Amino acid sequence: MIVILKENPNPRQVENLKHWLQSQGITIHESMGVHQTVLGLVGDTTAIDIDLIQALDIVEDVKRIQEPYKKANRKFHPMDTVIDVGGHKIGGGHCQIIAGPCSVESEKQIILVAELCKKAGATMLRGGAFKPRTSPYSFQGLHSQGLKFLLEAKKETGMPIVTEIMDISQLDLFEDVDVIQVGARNSQNFELLKKLGTLQKPILLKRGMSGTIQELLMSAEYIMAGGNPNVILCERGIRTFETATRNTLDLSAVPVLHQLTHLPVVIDPSHALGYSKYVPSMAVTAAATGCDGFEIEVHNDPAHALCDGPQALLPEVFADVVKKINAVRAALGWEPTGK
Amino acid sequence: MIVILKENPNPRQVENLKHWLQSQGITIHESMGVHQTVLGLVGDTTAIDIDLIQALDIVEDVKRIQEPYKKANRKFHPMDTVIDVGGHKIGGGHCQIIAGPCSVESEKQIILVAELCKKAGATMLRGGAFKPRTSPYSFQGLHSQGLKFLLEAKKETGMPIVTEIMDISQLDLFEDVDVIQVGARNSQNFELLKKLGTLQKPILLKRGMSGTIQELLMSAEYIMAGGNPNVILCERGIRTFETATRNTLDLSAVPVLHQLTHLPVVIDPSHALGYSKYVPSMAVTAAATGCDGFEIEVHNDPAHALCDGPQALLPEVFADVVKKINAVRAALGWEPTGK
Amino acid sequence: MIVILKENPNPRQVENLKHWLQSQGITIHESMGVHQTVLGLVGDTTAIDIDLIQALDIVEDVKRIQEPYKKANRKFHPMDTVIDVGGHKIGGGHCQIIAGPCSVESEKQIILVAELCKKAGATMLRGGAFKPRTSPYSFQGLHSQGLKFLLEAKKETGMPIVTEIMDISQLDLFEDVDVIQVGARNSQNFELLKKLGTLQKPILLKRGMSGTIQELLMSAEYIMAGGNPNVILCERGIRTFETATRNTLDLSAVPVLHQLTHLPVVIDPSHALGYSKYVPSMAVTAAATGCDGFEIEVHNDPAHALCDGPQALLPEVFADVVKKINAVRAALGWEPTGK
Amino acid sequence: MIVILKENPNPRQVENLKHWLQSQGITIHESMGVHQTVLGLVGDTTAIDIDLIQALDIVEDVKRIQEPYKKANRKFHPMDTVIDVGGHKIGGGHCQIIAGPCSVESEKQIILVAELCKKAGATMLRGGAFKPRTSPYSFQGLHSQGLKFLLEAKKETGMPIVTEIMDISQLDLFEDVDVIQVGARNSQNFELLKKLGTLQKPILLKRGMSGTIQELLMSAEYIMAGGNPNVILCERGIRTFETATRNTLDLSAVPVLHQLTHLPVVIDPSHALGYSKYVPSMAVTAAATGCDGFEIEVHNDPAHALCDGPQALLPEVFADVVKKINAVRAALGWEPTGK
Repeated sequence: MIVILKENPNPRQVENLKHWLQSQGITIHESMGVHQTVLGLVGDTTAIDIDLIQALDIVEDVKRIQEPYKKANRKFHPMDTVIDVGGHKIGGGHCQIIAGPCSVESEKQIILVAELCKKAGATMLRGGAFKPRTSPYSFQGLHSQGLKFLLEAKKETGMPIVTEIMDISQLDLFEDVDVIQVGARNSQNFELLKKLGTLQKPILLKRGMSGTIQELLMSAEYIMAGGNPNVILCERGIRTFETATRNTLDLSAVPVLHQLTHLPVVIDPSHALGYSKYVPSMAVTAAATGCDGFEIEVHNDPAHALCDGPQALLPEVFADVVKKINAVRAALGWEPTGK
Repeated sequence: MIVILKENPNPRQVENLKHWLQSQGITIHESMGVHQTVLGLVGDTTAIDIDLIQALDIVEDVKRIQEPYKKANRKFHPMDTVIDVGGHKIGGGHCQIIAGPCSVESEKQIILVAELCKKAGATMLRGGAFKPRTSPYSFQGLHSQGLKFLLEAKKETGMPIVTEIMDISQLDLFEDVDVIQVGARNSQNFELLKKLGTLQKPILLKRGMSGTIQELLMSAEYIMAGGNPNVILCERGIRTFETATRNTLDLSAVPVLHQLTHLPVVIDPSHALGYSKYVPSMAVTAAATGCDGFEIEVHNDPAHALCDGPQALLPEVFADVVKKINAVRAALGWEPTGK
Repeated sequence: MIVILKENPNPRQVENLKHWLQSQGITIHESMGVHQTVLGLVGDTTAIDIDLIQALDIVEDVKRIQEPYKKANRKFHPMDTVIDVGGHKIGGGHCQIIAGPCSVESEKQIILVAELCKKAGATMLRGGAFKPRTSPYSFQGLHSQGLKFLLEAKKETGMPIVTEIMDISQLDLFEDVDVIQVGARNSQNFELLKKLGTLQKPILLKRGMSGTIQELLMSAEYIMAGGNPNVILCERGIRTFETATRNTLDLSAVPVLHQLTHLPVVIDPSHALGYSKYVPSMAVTAAATGCDGFEIEVHNDPAHALCDGPQALLPEVFADVVKKINAVRAALGWEPTGK
Repeated sequence: MIVILKENPNPRQVENLKHWLQSQGITIHESMGVHQTVLGLVGDTTAIDIDLIQALDIVEDVKRIQEPYKKANRKFHPMDTVIDVGGHKIGGGHCQIIAGPCSVESEKQIILVAELCKKAGATMLRGGAFKPRTSPYSFQGLHSQGLKFLLEAKKETGMPIVTEIMDISQLDLFEDVDVIQVGARNSQNFELLKKLGTLQKPILLKRGMSGTIQELLMSAEYIMAGGNPNVILCERGIRTFETATRNTLDLSAVPVLHQLTHLPVVIDPSHALGYSKYVPSMAVTAAATGCDGFEIEVHNDPAHALCDGPQALLPEVFADVVKKINAVRAALGWEPTGK
């Protein structure tokens, strides 16, 4: 970390800053320029809060050299993390497709969709039992009954299940869930992240609606710092000024994350686009990034099941998307999904 | 709500949509244009999910006429909500200043700062016991001990206290807290909002970092739908492309919110700006919006207490800010703060 | 267009609005609801300014049904526009790769890079003679001499050239240029767009840094309204809060634009990413969108030619990117680039 | 400027970089850390392109210490610039109100509005003759005739006039205009800025829709580098995700700009908000920032003159706004506007 001091800083404040830094175990290299003094901080600066220093009266600017995350940092763990979910590997060249309806509606529905998704090439089943909805008056999911139906579908099809938790108090219900999903709105719910850090179960962590890539990695670091290394990152669109799509899918996040971290990266085109008509094209496009997985909404009858329809694909459309994803992967020399 | 259908829509899908809408208690007025059919939905459409309809194959566009919030809506409750906190009123022309340190550090510190803030004109005390920090390696607050120190400061000074909750599991500790604050990162933590809706205690609800004004009102609606009408809204800066300030303080939110809702609106310039040098100017500026309160960080020794310094004002600077806030209020014909 | 009036609007203002609309050739269908009156506007509403109506005192909201662009609208021109540039077709399944250095530095350099690009599979040559630079103290391009060198390179290699205009006064110099590029900063320079509308030369129109997709189409409409149908749209990244990449490449723009317009769409990954390390991955990813072309910066020696280096690819890296672009296109059943 | 190199950089590339920097007149202080080498660049780095260096393979990061603008920089010109427009001073404690209609519609209209604005306390007259409109089918202004009407209004009322230029080719028509306005869409039209730099006439430079504060200052630097020191900066709202207002008015820009530059700063609440109902509140709020001027749209009959209505105030509302602006200024110890 480099701290650039203002011209003629208050010497008492400079001393305070230096003592405080040294008390945190940091060694300071000071160099004086014509107009400015620069402090080079050597040591483990991950616990140093850059905002705090940046805002001091005497400080012109601060520049972090070391990233503020350690366990998620590829520099310290060059090998890809590979996460095993019921025999299906994610990361390190292994790519899985997670598919299923937005909400679990009934046992019959979830089993039917699960079978159709599996047939089309999906290897994991998604489905919402607890649904974060903007309006308190909207359907909020079937809760524990929804989880029960999901587990039935797992029994019927053998597919591991991925489903979203919304609060620590729900955790007991997630014992048989294979991957716990943390939604975009909870991506900086630090108490929840800390709790999930005490498990060993894989966590699918979604990027916040206005979360930077570094913030996503800091949220992963919360889980990993607690002792759970099994974090799967998920890009699902960010909020921008553009309204033609619900969010803006930031596919550049894949090469950026693959450079910065060893954790696997999954793309969710359904929530990013918000309109089913654009989902197939962007799912196939995402395949060319070399992402480690996909999370795609599929429903047997979107037109009827209104509450699920908008961003869900029909099973036959989904099957075609999977074929194209694998055609793109093959063209780029990568193993097919599901391996 | 108005639904604009595409040209030549699939008739079966149109019938599905109409049946579903009718099953929700909605009456449909259909009108055919040259190219397009428009459905006018009459009835209580607050529970209708606009995104779901918007994304149907047969739908060109949807336009909500009625706002999706009821209890927070000024149309249905024209009179300003006035919230009483330990004898101090917020809303309806009453304006309070909430001040104090970012974090509670010790009993001595919080009592000292509380006394200085009170002397300068603050009527409520803020202080963080549970701190949401981007990094798991940063100081996370004194937790229950911090709350204890805050309550001591309340006893010493008589100031009601405002402090942030981060998870439902902490709720028992907040029994003697006067106003529970929900931070920007939890502004769509719907499980937490629902739980706070079961209380009668005032809730200070911060706008999310990328939260629209409508989303803020929907989050307030979650609390109110549960039975708690005592919601104070707080604008604290939104995330934009500009980096000269930590966030962009959206002061237009005050006239917009005052038009849309009867709930009081508080401005937090400290978190919005992120640099103490800009806080005084923007706190005084905010006063001219006619906002119903301020939340301002004050610390007795920002330069020493590094973890608190950047956006906190010195007590003497804060005292000057309060004077100017009241000068502006007087110039515009408003009662002084603290009444 | 649908205009939703407020409850109990001022009748005089409603009459004013209706007369004004009728004077614009619009027929009005009025329908009264319980709380609100809705005006349905029938006729050519492209010239009606939605912002103006939206902001009237008596108006609750306005919803455009018809898009405000006509000539660029696929609804009225369902067939893809195919633009011929020196025998190379763009659009309608034809995809071209435009490559070359950011700036023209010397005759020798531009000819060398052109030859390398052509060998690698590019069919058009780009190179900047007039460079929009944030700082007045930065290198601003070789101007007319740069154009002369580009024309030399065209003569040597037979590649049509694409280069940026910055002001109407430069137009005479562009007589032998094959495609005139309008940069992101000029995407709403309406006087320039109108002037380019009087030509028949193809225009490569870049999306503004904070330009919506609809604004891009309105800018295209400016050129087309003047009589020039040869507009190529270019997505080059939008400004968001994320700083890991220079801009956020919005690849969803391709399926969205392909649905809304018949004009060809080109992707510029170099300017969007800003770092050469991420460009190959995103160029290949863009191929899977089915875009109609690419604009990629290539330089023979980025490390030496500092002014060009950051986002430019080495020729050998570029050659590999072209191979992969075509592998992806083949996997999806599309013709190779350059056809 | 500080350049942080990656671990084990290619030595040839490091040498290239160092030679290139030295050839630009920069002295380099090199310091080796455990993992990283840091180059401190001493000298005039304003002409060094930070993006170019940042993106080199061997570079981890670059940090500018010196701002990239010189003539606009308060560090080198601590005294406020005061600009005289027909005897009315802007800057250095002098604050002027520029008011008038969005578009000039007729000689009668502009004279009437000018008289009403003057009576209410405005000291300069605004009015558009060349109008940047998103749609080519919208009214584009009266052009040279509009300028003629403005000059008539100046003659009648004695008010200096402020009006927008859209292209260099229009410059001859602006000879008698007192302040030339550059609109948000042209704020990085560098050729236009360079041309305006050759004049001595005051330029009112609007911030771009997605322009950072630093970019605004760089655009001012373009004008000043050409020899014209008379630049007035104008904040007029930035583009964000929020749609309740047309843009988000960034009032923090005033204290930030007042710290960074000596140039005067004007606020345009009309374009920022987009709805006349919010303009009075935000105009009065802006007064408390200590800005050096206001640009406000006023129209004698917004309801009738549809093309002007939405964001314009009625003269009587405007008069009340001016009173409140001056009440706020008096409360904060500042001279009234117009002095």
